[in-house]
Parts: sequence; structure tokens; C-alpha cells
Amino acid sequence: MINNDLCRAADILREKKPLVHCITNYVTATDTANILLAAGASPIMADDPAESAEITSSANALLINLGTPSENRIAAMERSCRAAAGEIPVVLDPVGVGASSFRADAVRRILSAGKVAVVRGNISELSALAGTNAHSHGVDAAEEVSLPLDIALTAAKKLGCICVLTGEVDIITDSSRTVCLKNGTPNLKQITGAGCMTSALTAAFAAVCDPFSAAVLGAAAMGIFGELAEQSALGVGLGRFHEALFDAAGNMNGQILSERIRYEER
Amino acid sequence: MINNDLCRAADILREKKPLVHCITNYVTATDTANILLAAGASPIMADDPAESAEITSSANALLINLGTPSENRIAAMERSCRAAAGEIPVVLDPVGVGASSFRADAVRRILSAGKVAVVRGNISELSALAGTNAHSHGVDAAEEVSLPLDIALTAAKKLGCICVLTGEVDIITDSSRTVCLKNGTPNLKQITGAGCMTSALTAAFAAVCDPFSAAVLGAAAMGIFGELAEQSALGVGLGRFHEALFDAAGNMNGQILSERIRYEER
Amino acid sequence: MINNDLCRAADILREKKPLVHCITNYVTATDTANILLAAGASPIMADDPAESAEITSSANALLINLGTPSENRIAAMERSCRAAAGEIPVVLDPVGVGASSFRADAVRRILSAGKVAVVRGNISELSALAGTNAHSHGVDAAEEVSLPLDIALTAAKKLGCICVLTGEVDIITDSSRTVCLKNGTPNLKQITGAGCMTSALTAAFAAVCDPFSAAVLGAAAMGIFGELAEQSALGVGLGRFHEALFDAAGNMNGQILSERIRYEER
Repeated sequence: MINNDLCRAADILREKKPLVHCITNYVTATDTANILLAAGASPIMADDPAESAEITSSANALLINLGTPSENRIAAMERSCRAAAGEIPVVLDPVGVGASSFRADAVRRILSAGKVAVVRGNISELSALAGTNAHSHGVDAAEEVSLPLDIALTAAKKLGCICVLTGEVDIITDSSRTVCLKNGTPNLKQITGAGCMTSALTAAFAAVCDPFSAAVLGAAAMGIFGELAEQSALGVGLGRFHEALFDAAGNMNGQILSERIRYEER
Repeated sequence: MINNDLCRAADILREKKPLVHCITNYVTATDTANILLAAGASPIMADDPAESAEITSSANALLINLGTPSENRIAAMERSCRAAAGEIPVVLDPVGVGASSFRADAVRRILSAGKVAVVRGNISELSALAGTNAHSHGVDAAEEVSLPLDIALTAAKKLGCICVLTGEVDIITDSSRTVCLKNGTPNLKQITGAGCMTSALTAAFAAVCDPFSAAVLGAAAMGIFGELAEQSALGVGLGRFHEALFDAAGNMNGQILSERIRYEER
Repeated sequence: MINNDLCRAADILREKKPLVHCITNYVTATDTANILLAAGASPIMADDPAESAEITSSANALLINLGTPSENRIAAMERSCRAAAGEIPVVLDPVGVGASSFRADAVRRILSAGKVAVVRGNISELSALAGTNAHSHGVDAAEEVSLPLDIALTAAKKLGCICVLTGEVDIITDSSRTVCLKNGTPNLKQITGAGCMTSALTAAFAAVCDPFSAAVLGAAAMGIFGELAEQSALGVGLGRFHEALFDAAGNMNGQILSERIRYEER
């Protein structure tokens, strides 16, 4: 895998404008739609079981995000995951999965409904899925817990899919192959939606390249948007930082990605 | 219809602050509320059948937007449409109606519940309603399809109401009278919510003038906000563009509208 | 109560990062999460009765916001309020309570489910709760009605909790003790969510200090963010104003609060 080839996917994304079906939460839905549009994808949000399978069937990728879950929304996720049937790549963002048994059950239901290609979460979320014991403190957990690499590997083995653990260093692993990324900025934890947008970008990339590359690119792109936004917001603040993420996403291309990606195969 | 008279409605809107009941989706609800407030209207969001009719009864206009539909939300739309009873102007935005039979059914239910004054959609959505065959690709469809004018006319005849087809050129028609607008910028397709905000502005205008004028003004206002935002975001990007739409909306008045509207009666 | 001591709570908030469980509406959920994060708190949004009590049990404060109510969301509010059991401070924002009997009933159900520490609303909302007769016009009511102080006092007596009436002057009272705040700017009424964010900040402060101080600080902080945002948006507009609120929130500390708070004990 050479960076230039990998990063070219950003240009292909803009050409192909893949349709990404998002079953997501109402807190970050606007940002999720806007980051997808800015990056070149075409989002459609639909979270009712009465239509979710039909929508998935015509989509190029499926994003399932567990923030603000409800019984209805989970039923929609199950049907869509089934409709994807291993043909359409599925990315799962288990938001706050350690915070309630309702969310833990939801993840089990989704994973047994159909093949999930990539699971992306923070250290608390992947730790909850891996069965290790990092205490969950809200959705954006403190990352003092050591051993994120171990957690990601354990989760990948247990779930049998690619796991992305985003944090100070982003870890992407399918348990046999592991990549670390050092893009990003702590400011991304000061706004809501950075994780959700990373997952959405991963789904968009999964529509135009293999899921492992998509997982790397989704995390790298979001990290790079954060770095560029931070420059733009210097001396201003978090509001400007948040807005500038979309400036950066709209200007993204393969060259910018390949110049800025801080990638390390382990 | 003289532009100056028409555009004065923007000032009347700011004076009267009409209450616009919005039954809308959770992806663009924030932007919808903010564009209404910035333009001078007073939004209230309420999407549960237990209260929707009561809320509509005290409102000056009703916006029905089909993004993220659920059975509950559609029931609320039906009740509100019935409560409007032809007295309160109703604007329908059939988001993604070509994407699922659930949405197509929802439109039928809403149209048979009560009189809709204006339907606003993109070419795929109006094509789906007109029964013509423009392929739906997500919510923001590619507009390569020719004949948007034919589609708008066919939809207006079939639905028996004013149809607004927004795109490179916006077409407003009740099948006997047709106006084309050339305001806007392609950037409006790069963010989520431009169409939803156009529909919301149309509802706000419909509370203070006749529905055909409201349909023209809603589309013109949003197009002009896009033009002004584009100037402000030059060399920055989509995040700044998105924010600047609300700067423009907050500064809107009848004079700006009448100076910038690019209006052509056909 | 000395201002410096009071305002130090802003620094404690940033240190302790309390977990604030928000059961809120989908119109202002993003802004609510972002203002909490910017101010140093850790939000978790969860509005389904299947998990709401469990989430509340691990939280440091509970925010209940009645915008976009549904039967399901209200059931979640009741369960969470019960789970809080007087141990976890509860802040209630009765959005649009005068606009429908569904919302009025919801408030009754929530208040009888458990102890609410603070209710924050505008003059129409508190008037509806107090049983006085200020006409409700949408969610952001005109504040021409005189006697906001009387309304706040009547509401506080009737509800038996601290009431915050935000408007040109913010009034905080538990009926025996009353504080007036003169921070803020009219622009805060031109965007959606200012009230919701004030309530959220109040909940965050309630996790680190007594509820009366929290009520004062929540309202003061939001008012000060508005003042700072207005300076930053001069000559630009409402979009920039909205964004700059989060710049100000991210930069907030005890010193800024104590320098800018315009506080008057009555």
C-alpha cells in the first residue's frame, strides 16, 4: 500500500459521489451530512424500519451510528444491515455502548443481523465491546487508559472485523494487520461529532475502496481536517474551529491527504 | 406583479413575525429554525400527533418536510394538514420521495389530508411526484436530466398546486403561470439543508402574501443568501459559506431582494 | 455570596468535567452538546425510556428539555427524573409549554415524577406554568408583557423550585431570594437554542455547585457569551454571531465570568 495510491481514493470519492445511507443520531446528523457532502459523497438519512432496507439497497455504503438509540431506530439498523447482506459495506459507530445495556444489546442485534466491515469507537466504546474494563465516562471518554492497541486488537478478534480506535493515536486493525495514524488535534474532542464524522467518512471511503483502506482514510481525513481547522481557528476559538472543519473537508483531495497523512504500519 | 411590491414582503415578514409550525427532519431542523428566525419569522417545531393539530391551529403557516420520516411523524403531518383546513398555508417538501415507497405513500396521505399550497423539491423529487422517470440518486439528485420545466408543469397539473423545482434555474409554476429565477450558486448543493431552508422561507412568506409570490420569494431569498454567502466565503470554504447564509438572512430586507432578484416571467 | 467565589465554579467545571445527561429536542441538540463541551462538561444524549434511568444514574446532572416532545421522550424524562431521586440535580426547560396541552401535561408528569431543582424558561413559558396569562406566541415569545418578576416569583412558589426567567433582564428566584442579571444581547433571541443552552449550562453548573448559584451562573455565562459573540460579529451578522458563542464558551473561565457578570441581589 503506497500512500499516493491510497490517498487517490479521495479524488475517486469526489468523482463517484457514492450514496451513503446513514442511520444515525439527531445530535450530529447535520454535521455528518455536511462532512459527507463536503468530501464529495451523497448522504441520505433514513432511520425508520418501514424504509431502511429499501434505502440501503440502493446505497453504496451504510453507516450505523448508535447515538440516541430507540427501539425503532435499532430495528431499522437490523433491517438495513440484513439488506446490506455483505454486498454493501457497513460501518458501525457504537456511540456510548458502555453507558447502557440497551446500547450493548443493540450492538449484539446489529452484529448478528449482518456483516459489519468496520467498527469505529473511542477507547471506552471499544473496551466495552472487547470486554475489557475501561470505565465509560460519557460519550467522549477520558483516554488515560493505557493499552489502546491491546483493546483494538482484542475487539477486532472478538468482533471479527476491522476495528478503528480513535484517540491521540488512531489505531486501525483487523487483528492481523495494524496501522497507526498520528493526525489530529485535541480540539476534536472539544466538539461533538468528530467521532461520528470519522465513521461517516469511513463509510464514504468504503464505497470506493477496500474497507481497511477506507478505515485508514476516514480516520486520516478527519484528523487532517482537525489540523487544518486548528490553524484557521488560532486565536479565535472552538466555534471557528468547528466551522473550519467543513472548509477543510470541502477542499480535500488526494494530494492534500497524501502530503499530510502520518501513517505507520506496525 | 412588480418586483418592488413583491419584495416588500420581506419587510412585512420582519414586522409581523409569523409563527411557522415546522414538522421537519432532524438533519436540517437547526438550520431551518435559524433561517426562519434570521428572516424575521418565529418557528415552532412540533412533530407528534398528540399536539400537531393544536400547534398548527395557532400558527400562521405550516411547513411539512419529509426528511427522516416515521409513522408517528407522518401521522402528525396528516393531522396538521387537516387542521390547516385550507385556512393556513401549507408548504410541502417531499425530501427523497423517490427513494422509498414509504415516502411516496406519505406524500399521498398528506395530500389527501388537506390542501397543500406549495410543493418544493429538486428535479428527482418533482419527477417522482409527476410520475416521470428521472432517476433518484440520494436526496440531492444530479440535475443532468433535461426538461425541468416540463417536470414542474406536469407535477403542478397532477398535484393541483404550485410547484417549485429548485436547481440551476428555479422554476415556480401553478401550470398556468410560470416564473424562472436565476439566483443561487452551486455551493448550495454542497451543504445539507438548502432545499429545506427554501421551503421554510416559502412557508414564512406564505404567511404574509399570496402563495405564488411566497414561492417566488422563498426561492429567490435562498438563492440570494447563497450568492452573498459565496462572496463572503471566497478563498475560505464550505464551513464559512454555510455560516454566511445566516449572516445574509439576518441582513435581508425588501430592498436587497428587489435589487438582486433575477426574475423572468414565461 | 461573593462574585469571585461564585465564578470560580467555571474553573471547577472545567476540572471536573461532569457528565450531563440531556433528554432534549432535536432542534438544538447539537448546540447543546457543543456548548457543554466548550464549557468543560461532558454531555450524553439519551432519550429512550429503555435506557434513560440507567444513563441518569451514572450522570452528575440531568437536563430535561421539552422541545419536540413525544410520548416516548416524555416517558424517558419521567424515568430519569425518578432515577435522579433528588440526588442528581435536575434542570427542566419547558420549551413552548403554553403552546399545547400535551406539553402542559408533560410538565405535570415530570414534576410529579421527581424533584426538579431549577426550571428555566422565557416569560411565556413561566407565565403558563405560573397560571398567569401571558399569551404564548411561538417558542420565543415577545416580552412586552410587564411583570416578569411577578411571574417568576409566582412560578417559583407554585412549583416549589428555583425559577429562572430569561429575557432582557434575567430573573433567578426561589421565591425567598431573588437575583437579577443584566448580561446578554437581543441577538440571542435571533438564533435558536439560546434558552436551551442556558438550561444546559445551568445543569452543568449544578453538578459542581448549589442549584441557586448554578442557575445564576448558567444564565450569566450564556449572557456573557452573547456579549462577546456580538463584539466578534459586529458588521458581519447572525451566522458569525452564532458561531462566536462557542468561541466564547471555549474560552470561558472564572475570571472572565467575575469581570463581566452584572449581578444584582434584590
